[in-house]
Parts: sequence; structure tokens; C-alpha cells
Amino acid sequence: MTFNYPKGIKKIEGPKKRKAPTLSTSAANRGMGFEQDINDTNSYYLEKGMALIYKRPTPINVVKVDYTKGAKITHAYYEQQSTTDYNGVYKGRYVDFEAKSSKNKTSFPMGNIAPQQIVHLKRVIEHGGIAFFLINMYAAEETYLLKADFIIDFYEHGDRKSIPLEDIRKNGYLVKEGIRPRFDYLPLLDEIFLK
Amino acid sequence: MTFNYPKGIKKIEGPKKRKAPTLSTSAANRGMGFEQDINDTNSYYLEKGMALIYKRPTPINVVKVDYTKGAKITHAYYEQQSTTDYNGVYKGRYVDFEAKSSKNKTSFPMGNIAPQQIVHLKRVIEHGGIAFFLINMYAAEETYLLKADFIIDFYEHGDRKSIPLEDIRKNGYLVKEGIRPRFDYLPLLDEIFLK
Repeated sequence: MTFNYPKGIKKIEGPKKRKAPTLSTSAANRGMGFEQDINDTNSYYLEKGMALIYKRPTPINVVKVDYTKGAKITHAYYEQQSTTDYNGVYKGRYVDFEAKSSKNKTSFPMGNIAPQQIVHLKRVIEHGGIAFFLINMYAAEETYLLKADFIIDFYEHGDRKSIPLEDIRKNGYLVKEGIRPRFDYLPLLDEIFLK
Repeated sequence: MTFNYPKGIKKIEGPKKRKAPTLSTSAANRGMGFEQDINDTNSYYLEKGMALIYKRPTPINVVKVDYTKGAKITHAYYEQQSTTDYNGVYKGRYVDFEAKSSKNKTSFPMGNIAPQQIVHLKRVIEHGGIAFFLINMYAAEETYLLKADFIIDFYEHGDRKSIPLEDIRKNGYLVKEGIRPRFDYLPLLDEIFLK
């Protein structure tokens, strides 16, 4: 799947790896760019001893392994993540979130969020964990932290298939961007969940 | 970094399928049996709404994917887990642990624990998480919860390459065994970490 990029849109990939936008840049690549930025942010937090947040490995269903070649996997498939991509610990509390990027200019399509992620985050909340989404609005060049409660409520009771950017701005918390950490979401956890 | 998985890794035996221990039973098989029991225990906790504990997927380094065949992975290798196998949330607190089984009759060989797991669990403790080991002494038919602090201290200052069973009994907490949950470790978290 490819997209035609309007002129002037900046890519959201990490500073060192950032490429100029091209016509062949796929949605997956853009998603990976934001994901990589979150990974870099988490590495920064790890190094500074601020928090311990890991990306869960993508589950892979291994069908066949060739043991004559040093356990080379020769047949396998990606499986759908049954949870979110990130979890960890901050100030003793359990933290669990999903990071998503959309190039849509005016809204965030709910199709980006898998039903099992909604189920999982409801459980996290039930067990007293800190649950949220980091939503990167690519065209607007803004990234928001939205409490999972808000997204879950929208998912279950909203009559729209996408969240208008204005609603995101109103209900979300703008994540401060910089060089390092790239997306400094940790101060927002203090403000929203731990005060 | 890749490593060779023993052949036995393919067999994931649950409690019903468990065979009587034999000399030919590989360490990997026994490890997977205990791992499966812990997975079953966590599934029970999930269903009953008692805790949310997941096994991290084994990270796999994907070298080649054949997209002409529905994203079939044709070349990949297992990577060593840089953390522990399990983490999640219990009563709002972050929980992180490693489950290990040994058939050694008199002691638990420290070689079962990877250096990066020690590093990881030290970080978990620093961030206020609940960190421990579940150690299954297969021959003695006893399973203990040992605080990560104890294992880390033994790892860093112990002069033995294995922890004597007597030390495990003295410093550990016996996990109650049953049909379902198979290894009921949750009450011990209340007793040890949350009282």
C-alpha cells in the first residue's frame, strides 16, 4: 500500500534515521518511524534510570525449524499481538500503552486500534495499571497522550469511526517533542495518573 | 545474538501430557513443562480477574520474508530474551519474574539464570516493581518463590555456582500446588510484597 505525500509534510522518524518523504513510503514505514521514536525515548528513560518500559516482541508462530543449520527457522508467520506494544514500570506502577501514528489530517481512524487491545486495556485498568495511547497526528505534527478510558468509551459508545482531531486536542495531553527524549511522555504520567 | 535452541523446544507439554521423569527427558522439555504450568496458572488468574500476567514472546530475528506467499518467514533465528519471561500487573503494582525448573536433586545451578536477567531484575527493583523467581525443584517436587534480591545477592556475592536446596527452603516461600491454578503464587505476593 502506498500513499501520495502532499508536499511539505515532514516525516516523523527518528532524527538520525530520517529519510526524505518519497512516494513509496508505506503506512507501515510511517508507523515504524513513530514506533522507533518511542523505542528511542524508552531507551533514554532506561539509561537515565527514569522508567523501565519495553516493547513486546512481535509474536511469531514457528512452523518449522532446521536443526541441521543451527536452529534456523525456515517456516514461520507473524501473529497478531494480543495485547499492546509497550509495558513496564514507572515509580512502582504498572504502565501499559499502545503507540499509533496516523497521517489523517482531521481525525484519528479507530480502525488503527484492534479490538483485543481494547479488551486488554480494560483489564489493565481493572487491575489498577496506568493505561493510555500515544497518538501521533502526523499531518498536524502533534502527538497526544489519551487515557485508555477515553478511547475505550469512544470505541464502545462513539458513533463515529474516527476521533476528530479537535476531540483529541480537547481530551488529550500534548506530548512535548525534542531531540532526546524524542517524545517526553513521562511527565504526563505524573500529571495525569500519579498526582 | 543468536543461540541454538535444543531440539526439545518444540514440545510444549502441559500438566495432562506430562510424562514421568526419565533420564532422557531433556532440560528444555522439563523447562517447557513448568513454563506451560505457569502459563496455565496465569490464564486462570486472567479468567478469574485476579491478575494480568503475560509471558513475553520469544524474540525472533527475522532475516527473510517471502511476501509472495502471504508474508511467510523463510529465514529467522531465535534471539536470547534480554529480560525475564513474565511480567504484568497485580493490584496496580508492576510484577516481573523468571520461572526456572531444575532436575538437580540437591541444588539449583545458577547457570540457569542469564546475566542480563540479573541486570533486568535489579532495574525492576530500582523502579519499585515486584521482582522474583519461581524455582521448580523437579526431583524434590517442590516449587519456591525467591525474591529477586536474594538471587541477585547470591549471584553477585555467593561463592557457589549453585544454590543448595536447603538455602532455597530457608529463604524461599513454598508455592502451593494444585490442579487449577497449578502453582498458586499470587497469595505469596500479598504476603511478601504487599502487606
